[in-house]
Formats: sequence, C-alpha cells, structure tokens
Amino acid sequence: MKIGKVTGSVWATRKADCLSGQTFLVVETSTEQLVAADQVGAGTGDLVLLATGTTAARYCLDAPIDAAVVAILDQEGKHVST
Amino acid sequence: MKIGKVTGSVWATRKADCLSGQTFLVVETSTEQLVAADQVGAGTGDLVLLATGTTAARYCLDAPIDAAVVAILDQEGKHVST
Amino acid sequence: MKIGKVTGSVWATRKADCLSGQTFLVVETSTEQLVAADQVGAGTGDLVLLATGTTAARYCLDAPIDAAVVAILDQEGKHVST
Amino acid sequence: MKIGKVTGSVWATRKADCLSGQTFLVVETSTEQLVAADQVGAGTGDLVLLATGTTAARYCLDAPIDAAVVAILDQEGKHVST
Amino acid sequence: MKIGKVTGSVWATRKADCLSGQTFLVVETSTEQLVAADQVGAGTGDLVLLATGTTAARYCLDAPIDAAVVAILDQEGKHVST
Repeated sequence: MKIGKVTGSVWATRKADCLSGQTFLVVETSTEQLVAADQVGAGTGDLVLLATGTTAARYCLDAPIDAAVVAILDQEGKHVST
Repeated sequence: MKIGKVTGSVWATRKADCLSGQTFLVVETSTEQLVAADQVGAGTGDLVLLATGTTAARYCLDAPIDAAVVAILDQEGKHVST
Repeated sequence: MKIGKVTGSVWATRKADCLSGQTFLVVETSTEQLVAADQVGAGTGDLVLLATGTTAARYCLDAPIDAAVVAILDQEGKHVST
Repeated sequence: MKIGKVTGSVWATRKADCLSGQTFLVVETSTEQLVAADQVGAGTGDLVLLATGTTAARYCLDAPIDAAVVAILDQEGKHVST
Repeated sequence: MKIGKVTGSVWATRKADCLSGQTFLVVETSTEQLVAADQVGAGTGDLVLLATGTTAARYCLDAPIDAAVVAILDQEGKHVST
C-alpha cells in the first residue's frame, strides 16, 4: 500500500451504474495523485493507506475501481525513520 | 483511479475480435497518455475518471482492455485542494 | 492501453513450454520498451495498441505473458489533439 | 519482487475489518516507499523481498492488501553484481 | 514483458513456506532492478524475458511471486531496431 493525504473529493453525475453510492477521495502520495473509493470514512487532511489494483476492486464489491482507502493512519502512532 | 482529460480517439481496422464495438478514447493524465475504452459516452475535452488494470477488463466484458473511462467528472462540483 | 510502435522482435530457444508458437514483438511507447505477444499480425513500423497485465495473459491462453498487441491503429484515421 | 529495507511501521485504529491483526511495515526500495503486510516477522533494518499486486492480496487471506513482505534476505548470502 | 539481464541472485532463510525450492534471480532492466523466480535455468549474464504481476504468480504455482523469468533470449537472433 501507499501512504497518502486526502486533499479533496470529486463528483460525477454521469458514471458507471456500479459506482453509485461510492465516495471518491482525491489522495496525494509522494509521487502521484489518485482518486480512491472511501470505505473507512476518511476526510480532507487525513493520512491514509491506499490499496491499489484488483485488490481495491474486490474490496469495493467488484465495481470498476482500482484504488481504495483502507485505513486512516494514527498520526501520533506513526514511527517511520527515513 | 486517475483523473484525465479526453484529447481524442483512435481507430483500428485490424484488431482482436472481442474489441469490436468498443470506442477507444485517448486520455491524458498528469503523467502519461493512455487509450481507454469508453463506457459512459465521454467526448473530447471531458474530465474523466480512468480505471486501469484487470478491473477495466472485467468492466468491458472481459475484452483485452486494461483501461476504461468509468465516470465523467462534474467540473463545477470538483473541489480539490492541492 | 498504450500506443506503441513495433521496432523489432525477439527469439528465445529456451523458454517456458506454454510460450511456444507465440511471436514476441519489441514495442516502444513514449516512456518505455516492452516485449509483447502478437495476436493480430503486426509488423515492424506498425502503430499498435498494447494491453498489459493480467488482461494480456488471459488473451494469450493463460501463457505467462503480461503484454499483448491487441490492435493495429489506422494511422490515417487517428485524430489526436495533444 | 523488489528488494527493500524496513524503516518502520504504521498503526491505524480506523481500518477495514479484514485488516485486523496485520502488521504493516514501511519499506523503502531504491525508487519508492511502500507499506507492506508482514508475514515473516521482519523488523526495522531488515533487507526484505516485497511481492506486490494481487499476489500479495492472496497471500494475506484476501485482505485489501497490495504489498507483502515474503522473505528476509540473508545479507551475507547476497551476491549481486551491479 | 520486459527485457533484462541477470546480474546475480539472492538467498533467504526466513521466507514464506510456499517460496521453498524457488531460485530468485536479480534482473536489471533499462529502468529498474527486480528479483524474479527462475523457471528456465537462467544464469548471470543471460538476457531474459521477465513476466510480471499476477501472470508470474500463476506460472509459479500460486506462490507469492510477482516476477518470473520466462525465457532466455537468443542474443544472436535478436534484431531490434531502436
């Protein structure tokens, strides 16, 4: 997974039927910007874990989705030496 | 998914049988150019959501496709802080 | 999918059994060089559509293949505004 | 697979149910930073093999995971000419 | 697939059970370094074809593997115009 920060969301009136009811968050990682389906109630400013690829699709009831927010990181509990 | 802008389309007379009837749009993201199967009626200039990988293939009736346009973004309704 | 140009082919005497009978084309995209299984009779100089990932494998009878040429673009019929 | 070095770990209180009980390691490869599920007991400083994509998901009991640490490299036994 | 050159191998005593008996080669492509399961008896210096992603996993009896060496290129028989 990748670590990213939620920076906003997008709306689409015209979309594939199976995408109805999904919330799409814009997430910035250190290298790219992705749009991911939210399943954990994340909001702007949250640091999140992104799962991408087929894994994300399965997680989202087989909708045509290739990225999902699967966790909100505990920022105080994050100890990363870089 | 990635956000991209539709910049045109491509035609192919010689192609895999299972690709017949598909419309292929050229979509530019911030980092690359892709050709994606259109399932939502997008046109040149539209800002769209691209699903890539196996997810796109499944969405397109198992044709040999690795990218699909799955939504047209509401440009007024887009609130992205970058 | 990505647009690429066929620049040659490769041969391999020692290979996985399930790869026998496949033609492998070298294809250059705007960003990388790939080797793809040919299923549409493409040749050097052709502008082609490349499908990558699991999709390509399925298209090639489940051989260990991760890229396939799935269409030859009609160059006159290509209208891409960039 | 990619070779990476474990540099830390992350915690998440709010996460997808199926992620409970997983340990998530931060792993640095030569090109990027990933978060991977640990299945072999790796710790900070270990040189590890990372499997990514659907493969990692299957290895982790179908949780929404796209990267897993699948081996700890024997550093003395590593002979790589570059 | 990608073309790469075998530059060495790696050993791991602590690894996922399903990886036992696999040989892991370090392969350099034009853009990155990967570790791939060898199924064709390749050795250091060989020019090989790499299959990546789920395809590689399936080829290796569903072990948690995301890259496999699937062919050794005939270097004399390689005609690539670049």
